[in-house]
Amino acid sequence: MTTETFQFKLLATDGKARRGEISMPRGVIRTPAFMPVGTGGTVKAMYMDQVRDLGADIILGNTYHLMLRPGAERVAKLGGLHEFGRWQKPILTDSGGFQVMSLSALRKIDEHGVTFRSHIDGSRHEMSPERSIEIQGLLGSDIQMQLDECVRLPAEEAEIERAMEMSLRWAERCKSAFGDQPGKAMFGIVQGGDTPTLRERSARALAGLDLKGYAVGGLAVGEPQDVMLDMLDVTCPLLPSNKPRYLMGVGTPDDILKSVGRGVDMFDCVMPTRAGRHGLAFTRHGKINLKNARHAEDHRPLDEESSCPAARDYSRAYLHHLVRSNEILGMMLITWNNLSYYQDLMAGIRAAIGEGSFATFTDETAARWARGDIPPLG
Amino acid sequence: MTTETFQFKLLATDGKARRGEISMPRGVIRTPAFMPVGTGGTVKAMYMDQVRDLGADIILGNTYHLMLRPGAERVAKLGGLHEFGRWQKPILTDSGGFQVMSLSALRKIDEHGVTFRSHIDGSRHEMSPERSIEIQGLLGSDIQMQLDECVRLPAEEAEIERAMEMSLRWAERCKSAFGDQPGKAMFGIVQGGDTPTLRERSARALAGLDLKGYAVGGLAVGEPQDVMLDMLDVTCPLLPSNKPRYLMGVGTPDDILKSVGRGVDMFDCVMPTRAGRHGLAFTRHGKINLKNARHAEDHRPLDEESSCPAARDYSRAYLHHLVRSNEILGMMLITWNNLSYYQDLMAGIRAAIGEGSFATFTDETAARWARGDIPPLG
Repeated sequence: MTTETFQFKLLATDGKARRGEISMPRGVIRTPAFMPVGTGGTVKAMYMDQVRDLGADIILGNTYHLMLRPGAERVAKLGGLHEFGRWQKPILTDSGGFQVMSLSALRKIDEHGVTFRSHIDGSRHEMSPERSIEIQGLLGSDIQMQLDECVRLPAEEAEIERAMEMSLRWAERCKSAFGDQPGKAMFGIVQGGDTPTLRERSARALAGLDLKGYAVGGLAVGEPQDVMLDMLDVTCPLLPSNKPRYLMGVGTPDDILKSVGRGVDMFDCVMPTRAGRHGLAFTRHGKINLKNARHAEDHRPLDEESSCPAARDYSRAYLHHLVRSNEILGMMLITWNNLSYYQDLMAGIRAAIGEGSFATFTDETAARWARGDIPPLG
Repeated sequence: MTTETFQFKLLATDGKARRGEISMPRGVIRTPAFMPVGTGGTVKAMYMDQVRDLGADIILGNTYHLMLRPGAERVAKLGGLHEFGRWQKPILTDSGGFQVMSLSALRKIDEHGVTFRSHIDGSRHEMSPERSIEIQGLLGSDIQMQLDECVRLPAEEAEIERAMEMSLRWAERCKSAFGDQPGKAMFGIVQGGDTPTLRERSARALAGLDLKGYAVGGLAVGEPQDVMLDMLDVTCPLLPSNKPRYLMGVGTPDDILKSVGRGVDMFDCVMPTRAGRHGLAFTRHGKINLKNARHAEDHRPLDEESSCPAARDYSRAYLHHLVRSNEILGMMLITWNNLSYYQDLMAGIRAAIGEGSFATFTDETAARWARGDIPPLG
């Protein structure tokens, strides 16, 4: 049930894994949740109706992309991002900081904020913590993220510390800028790189700000998976258990399973959509590269047991042909399959936590991946 | 109602315009018909379900593309093109000759047939009239086209004549190769460039072969529209009135209206799909370039009266944004809109012919295009 205010309810736990529900005016988000990435107001190669029908309760929008094109003020004039992109359920926006670091040129960062040039047209932009929140407000975002500085790993500890401390000060500024918006939320972001003591300090300080939710940032930026998991082991117990926890930019189905097992509630990642545009399909049998010649004359579908037409009704041979020919329909179908697989995985996770069988679910899912794809045709 | 044999029934005429029905085992084709182009087994950026739901009774497949990738024998092994591409209604395939001329390298043409190198991987291929029919049979095509030689205009009359005469001899060879297939059809193709006497000779000779249908080829290859229409004026009266007439590769909505008025029953063209991938929308108000800045803050849809969601439910501002950002969804939506417009136009044409109001329909449709798009927002 939707609520007038932003609320998080823990419905079940199973070990550290949590099943819950965020309710807010635009809808209910069943957690653990995977948020498809709708970078520039579109989940690439998908109709929004399809995204909704797959069971996604929330999508993510990228502030950096949207502020550059079509522009936050323009989106606001057009009724906000929900209206613009025809998605009526909740939207989470990132702060724009991560893409400034990864995509823009000539960026400069200081206590005030970041200055950068657009990767599209070279135009100069400034973004302070306050402006990031203002932009996210113009977009009409339901869950907004604080501006932070994300350091690429490996990095010097002093550098990680400096960025983490500044991110904490920016969290306070974002909290003030966001003010009191009962139906929406602003999440803080734990930083601290791969240094446990810095992660701890960041998590404790943010917890003290009593925000509506907490993200773990600066992970999945090149470090090995076990470093990421170690950081979750350090961080999650320090975050208030009555607030949702969001692991930003993660990840593979395996990353998600292991992170849920450490107490994470929300995820986003371009992986299913980006892989879908490159012929890589996520399935119960693991990851399948449809470019591979073994599929060229295989009349079987990706997964005959799937409820997704893309997985169930199209032959691998046809998908292979579409991928080899760079056909848009190939991208449409494999993206659809991938988002379906991710949403089904999350539904399976939620059900397992509810039944207290999350460990079994994890083992069985991983075992199926390990067995790999069905044997080639004889 | 489908029939076990290929049949064409003339249901109404209005001036030279004809409303009819082709019935065959895979379905009924209401004429005048527009066939969306499904080059390589996919109508680009569309799900086949959408194409069907727009009212398309038949699609076109390109023999040249399909023989190179995935290969005719492979498609046959996979159950044929209907099964492969998930389109159960009739499919017309061209002979491959036109694309050999326009796309391949190192082509050589003589009485035997054509030799060429693939534009994809440079591999060498031969195609005789007999092999073209064999390939179309392997694909499972319902309406197959004779191999012909299409001369690019302008050209010397002697060259046009030579190609036309050879195309006639190839028509006979294709007829023999096709043999007796009651539920399918093989169409001959009138050639003769922009020379009326050659067009006449070609049409009369083909009519003498008693084929199941006749195409007019070698038009819309660079000549002005009035030359094309003159050739139709010369050709159509010489074709048997009890057989369907197909104008290949045509065209704009205006070309279609004017050609229907001269007795043409079938059309195919990449225009709606190709334009859709480049931000050009066909509407009742004429052609609209969504890249244009005038749409950037226009919350109105392309056409609020359309029954197509792409035309009715998405703002021009959003479509503009998608096109400017090269988003796949932009191509998906505008292609959808365009094919919807083309199918609606054909439905309107058929209804008007049935009511004896084709001239009025033509005038009103053209007048609406001439008035142009709705005024920009104030």
